Amino acid sequence: MRVIDIIDKKRLGGEHTDDEIHFLVRNYAQDGIPDYQMSAWLMAVVWRGLTPAETFALTGAMVASGDTLDLSGVGRPTVDKHSTGGVGDKTTLAVVPILAAGGVAVAKMSGRGLGHTGGTLDKLESIPGTRTSLEVPEILRQVHDIGACLCAQTPTLVPADQKMYSLRDATATVQSRPLIAASIMSKKIAGGGKSIVLDVKVGSGAFMETIEDARALARLMVDIGKAYDRRVVAVLTDMNVPLGFNVGNSVEIREVVALLKDNAGVDRRLRELVLYLSGVAFELAGKADSVEAGQEMAASLIVSGDAFEMLCKIIEAQGGDPEYLRRTVKQPAARVKLDIRSPRGGYIRNVDASVIGVAAMRLGAGRETKDAVVDHSAGVVLRHTVGDLVERDNIIATLYTATEIAARQVASEVVGAFDIVDGEVDAAPLIYETISG
Amino acid sequence: MRVIDIIDKKRLGGEHTDDEIHFLVRNYAQDGIPDYQMSAWLMAVVWRGLTPAETFALTGAMVASGDTLDLSGVGRPTVDKHSTGGVGDKTTLAVVPILAAGGVAVAKMSGRGLGHTGGTLDKLESIPGTRTSLEVPEILRQVHDIGACLCAQTPTLVPADQKMYSLRDATATVQSRPLIAASIMSKKIAGGGKSIVLDVKVGSGAFMETIEDARALARLMVDIGKAYDRRVVAVLTDMNVPLGFNVGNSVEIREVVALLKDNAGVDRRLRELVLYLSGVAFELAGKADSVEAGQEMAASLIVSGDAFEMLCKIIEAQGGDPEYLRRTVKQPAARVKLDIRSPRGGYIRNVDASVIGVAAMRLGAGRETKDAVVDHSAGVVLRHTVGDLVERDNIIATLYTATEIAARQVASEVVGAFDIVDGEVDAAPLIYETISG
Repeated sequence: MRVIDIIDKKRLGGEHTDDEIHFLVRNYAQDGIPDYQMSAWLMAVVWRGLTPAETFALTGAMVASGDTLDLSGVGRPTVDKHSTGGVGDKTTLAVVPILAAGGVAVAKMSGRGLGHTGGTLDKLESIPGTRTSLEVPEILRQVHDIGACLCAQTPTLVPADQKMYSLRDATATVQSRPLIAASIMSKKIAGGGKSIVLDVKVGSGAFMETIEDARALARLMVDIGKAYDRRVVAVLTDMNVPLGFNVGNSVEIREVVALLKDNAGVDRRLRELVLYLSGVAFELAGKADSVEAGQEMAASLIVSGDAFEMLCKIIEAQGGDPEYLRRTVKQPAARVKLDIRSPRGGYIRNVDASVIGVAAMRLGAGRETKDAVVDHSAGVVLRHTVGDLVERDNIIATLYTATEIAARQVASEVVGAFDIVDGEVDAAPLIYETISG
Repeated sequence: MRVIDIIDKKRLGGEHTDDEIHFLVRNYAQDGIPDYQMSAWLMAVVWRGLTPAETFALTGAMVASGDTLDLSGVGRPTVDKHSTGGVGDKTTLAVVPILAAGGVAVAKMSGRGLGHTGGTLDKLESIPGTRTSLEVPEILRQVHDIGACLCAQTPTLVPADQKMYSLRDATATVQSRPLIAASIMSKKIAGGGKSIVLDVKVGSGAFMETIEDARALARLMVDIGKAYDRRVVAVLTDMNVPLGFNVGNSVEIREVVALLKDNAGVDRRLRELVLYLSGVAFELAGKADSVEAGQEMAASLIVSGDAFEMLCKIIEAQGGDPEYLRRTVKQPAARVKLDIRSPRGGYIRNVDASVIGVAAMRLGAGRETKDAVVDHSAGVVLRHTVGDLVERDNIIATLYTATEIAARQVASEVVGAFDIVDGEVDAAPLIYETISG
């Protein structure tokens, strides 16, 4: 078998055999195939696509390139959760403790933020002392003892994906449905959870900008899961508007704490999505008879304080300071704080997630390039959201950052993210549809 | 300017600016852009294509990546010649001496054989002592003193093309009309000839299998030439049937010598094409008022012996033994000789160029991989060609190679290349059309 023939076959629109895909992935992961051949193949895949059978084989080949987590010893049902990423999406930080508090084990591995979307690891690391790089034995022990972990993907899990993703990122070959689906699902399958809840974001602040694209991706991921004996439910959710009020790192931790402490004033959409995803997971794990019953279970785990205590336990197990969580009611100490005022009165029809995401990144909360350093205290806090009535000069958002200049540079963009109109408007949408095997 | 944005633009089907293409080629040639990004871009180009303006820019950027030959000091009109490559195509070895004998200077740079097509350099090196690696000053001196050289492309000419071609060869991105056109024309423009004759092969033994593809490539190359102030004529010629009777290295030299010595029994198509390409070149160079007059001029330079003497001079100047050419009437000393006999009587309707080319390669005359060593004495000599009437058991071809096994292994393929039918058939076609600016 020759790589050049595999590339050529895809260039001509042919369908690969399982052997061809395993040959390609195995040898690439072991440095037996140079980057320049893999990137040519990847671009040919972006062009010609992959059939479902090819996509299943690619997923399996990537899983086979490294270790897999064996969660059979934790003695509880296991669930994994993934979001395709969005602005202000901190659901993982609430859903994982809720599930663990409800007796479902979650070995959750997350990524870092890049571009306009945030990353769970950066948010976690804004809690002093918290370690996110856990070794496989540590992950297994913590999930066994506590019921959950929140950590980085280990380097030995799906190394082919890690190598391929870096290459795709440098060669404009990220945008391919089968490549995206295989990348996500290979990590979920290697992660060992028997059930998987996927949150597929749709809108200006997400990878998928249309419902059709998101639905096709969700369907493909559910099918991949089925091929590997996983129960998968994908939820299509809105990402035209940021999720929650806070976008950044420590500001998002603060919002998660408020949600888990059942404080007043938490964004309705954020709370609703956390409960829904938890409900889906409880139902999949056999802890509830229906999604609705699962949602109620999640709500009572919040009210009882169990979910918040579980978050504290997870953070403490990973070296973080739970007292930080208990005390973190005041604003984080960003050097500069700038209030953004409404240029007019009216109803807020839209707050553009993409614009807010880029603004938060420019304030220091995210990374423009992979090597950039994140400012944990930076971010955007929305004071009003879609559906709200505001008057001229009301504070609609607050920016947190390190310098006056940085704040002033993004201020007008943040104003521009708000679409304010005369007539009353509906609240922003949240859940579009739920797809299961 | 970022490479990733350039790749992404082409992935989405956008048109590059001149600056973008120059940035890409210049930095790639200087090792500032990694192979894996260039190969992703190349595959995107295979997919999306390049506009004429992009193709002109690519050609210019490749020319600008290295030295160019300045032939203004040779004191004669200058012509260059290129063939897209075919089986048994030895026209360069006849046309260049004819032109030089007729007062037209030719600094001809050629390539090596790969796959089923032969390379002029390998044929030249079958003449004992002949050097094909000439330095630029040596090329200029020889073209000034004698009127022609036959050598390898120098490493300082169009280095971007040399690097890109190797990469294309390893990434299944050779098959792209604008990439092929820019690659050929950048070398011709850097080569300094004011007029250019292109022999674009069409058929089973050529890169371009249909007249439409060949015509589009020819048209594009003529247009590129115009954009860089060159007079270009492209001739579309048949490559379904090998050109000439001999396919290999020393066997092809022998055939060229027979042609230039005006011996009887030379393939009619080979002679006709050599005269036609020479006639086109003489007309372009202002040495003849018409292609017909140019053809007559070429024919008389053969009859007078001037063309053959010129070939001897060129070979001698490059360290080769002209006595070898004068004496080379007997078969070269291949260890094994195997006659192939006709399995039936009838008229030969076709001799498949591609099959004969692969057979010659397997006998040792060509390279399956770039590092393979060529056996100069190996090859196939056709004893009959299209239009001939043969009887059962007539010798239709002879194989020359190093081992009995090699000969036996390709024997049946060579028989299969002959399509023999009952009714009379036409001779093989030769010149399909001529395209000029």
